[in-house]
Amino acid sequence: VKTSSLQAALVEGVLRGEPRAIARAISVVEDGSMDAAPLLGALYARTGRGLIVGVTGPPGAGKSTLVDRMAARLRKQGRTVGIVAVDPTSPFTGGAILGDRVRMQAHALDPGVFIRSMATRGHLGGLAATTGRVLTVLDAAGKEVILVETVGVGQDEVEVVGIADVSVVVLVPGLGDEIQALKAGIMEIADVFVVNKADREGVDRVVAEIESMLSLVPAEGRRPAIVTTVACEDRGVAELIDAIEAFRDEAHRSGLLVRRRRAQAGALLQRELESRLASFVRARVLTAEETEGIIDRLVGRETDPLTAVEDVVGRLGLA
Amino acid sequence: VKTSSLQAALVEGVLRGEPRAIARAISVVEDGSMDAAPLLGALYARTGRGLIVGVTGPPGAGKSTLVDRMAARLRKQGRTVGIVAVDPTSPFTGGAILGDRVRMQAHALDPGVFIRSMATRGHLGGLAATTGRVLTVLDAAGKEVILVETVGVGQDEVEVVGIADVSVVVLVPGLGDEIQALKAGIMEIADVFVVNKADREGVDRVVAEIESMLSLVPAEGRRPAIVTTVACEDRGVAELIDAIEAFRDEAHRSGLLVRRRRAQAGALLQRELESRLASFVRARVLTAEETEGIIDRLVGRETDPLTAVEDVVGRLGLA
Repeated sequence: VKTSSLQAALVEGVLRGEPRAIARAISVVEDGSMDAAPLLGALYARTGRGLIVGVTGPPGAGKSTLVDRMAARLRKQGRTVGIVAVDPTSPFTGGAILGDRVRMQAHALDPGVFIRSMATRGHLGGLAATTGRVLTVLDAAGKEVILVETVGVGQDEVEVVGIADVSVVVLVPGLGDEIQALKAGIMEIADVFVVNKADREGVDRVVAEIESMLSLVPAEGRRPAIVTTVACEDRGVAELIDAIEAFRDEAHRSGLLVRRRRAQAGALLQRELESRLASFVRARVLTAEETEGIIDRLVGRETDPLTAVEDVVGRLGLA
Repeated sequence: VKTSSLQAALVEGVLRGEPRAIARAISVVEDGSMDAAPLLGALYARTGRGLIVGVTGPPGAGKSTLVDRMAARLRKQGRTVGIVAVDPTSPFTGGAILGDRVRMQAHALDPGVFIRSMATRGHLGGLAATTGRVLTVLDAAGKEVILVETVGVGQDEVEVVGIADVSVVVLVPGLGDEIQALKAGIMEIADVFVVNKADREGVDRVVAEIESMLSLVPAEGRRPAIVTTVACEDRGVAELIDAIEAFRDEAHRSGLLVRRRRAQAGALLQRELESRLASFVRARVLTAEETEGIIDRLVGRETDPLTAVEDVVGRLGLA
């Protein structure tokens, strides 16, 4: 895949870590146009150095504040930081409803931090595929630590977390039963647990619950650390960074990090291939006219969805 | 697609509404084996009569209790009911963590209610595709109203809600700000709003917030009704059923229901086609050996994901 001279300039800008070039490149790779392929190709060759840290947990756990403080701490250590905030959005307006965040102001004048909010909706190839592309840009741009924040525990979020080298799960005391139940979905992907808002009542109970749940899960290597934080007062944030680095070092030594990055590459390949096939179907197989004809027959119960699909697949020569 | 005589018996059982046949058929269509296609083909021809009602909203809104009471009310009116409860689950254990519900007991002896819990994870073709298949079985089985309950506001949930003829969004007073913010993602898909737990403080404020948000959205036809309920005391449930039926009648008259069902058929077709292509890729294109080879080259930065995908697509003759 060839790059144009305009793209070559964009690639150079990203590799130099210029914020405007990074923003531009992310827009190109997010919209999934033909320009994305050569750009990603050129950038991908320069990736693999950044540490990708996923931060997830139920709404109300204080993840945004925590991520903000983690970024501040990393900056004090002289490291460059990327933040990708995956926001729940309206399927109609397409905008990130949590919008411009307070954090944006805190880091606005620091070229060592690049922040991008991503809507959870409207990604043709799926949220995880798009997030993977954005991470490629930030990694190539030399961000040493990239924090990926997601809300919730849907399939999408788990896939996004699966992109990370290290997964941090944030819980808080005092969430309702049903919300606590939700955590089970992300319990087993955690490398490091955070109990945030640890100035509230019930911290010990949450920590005990996590320990009890961990005792049920067969341990592959070391047990996840449990760190308590009060992010809004900057308490425990240094310990959290330390726990993340301890995990990363151990995973590097044991070979887990290499295995995980291979698994990530495999998942990325699968997602991009499915995304590509879906685009092909939309553009070349299920044209508007053909789709209307099949819908007529479906609504009239003259065919059924799987039979219709087999017809299409047969015509493609893939049956 | 031909059905075997065993399958013909299963189809007959489903069409007669026999609970064991329904359960069996759902298992077949959920696991996505080759048996699913002829079964779904035979059943799909007998669908289109049931009214599909999506019920969604944030965790803690009391949706399960509400759905349970709606089912009881519909049964009193002599109508048969299907319930599909989409539960958040662990990606590792695969089980529905909310598990067997209290509701199961309430309706266990009533053959006029069929209840199925579905895990949100592990659906090869995606949750929405699988849910669509389960609805085909319940509709063919003659369930007059099918209630589909989902938790949360991820892409999955919005797609599942998109399967419904009527979408009900459940909110409650007193949820935190971030959880209330999440509602914006599902605000615009609501045909009927419910403010549940209406015996709590703050009901008027939630109703006012919904009205204010609705005033910002361009109205296509009638404004969504807002119903207040206290599901655990059975208050407001009859009014909710009335509001759903009023919407359905109006949507039928205006042609909205027909347009919506066409859109649903189109989305179903697209999902099943993407699911089919993904299976094809897994089984025939990205074999384990080939995948390992590509991963080696990705990890070594000798290629990038999009270039690798173009190579694969080129070999398929689809480029």
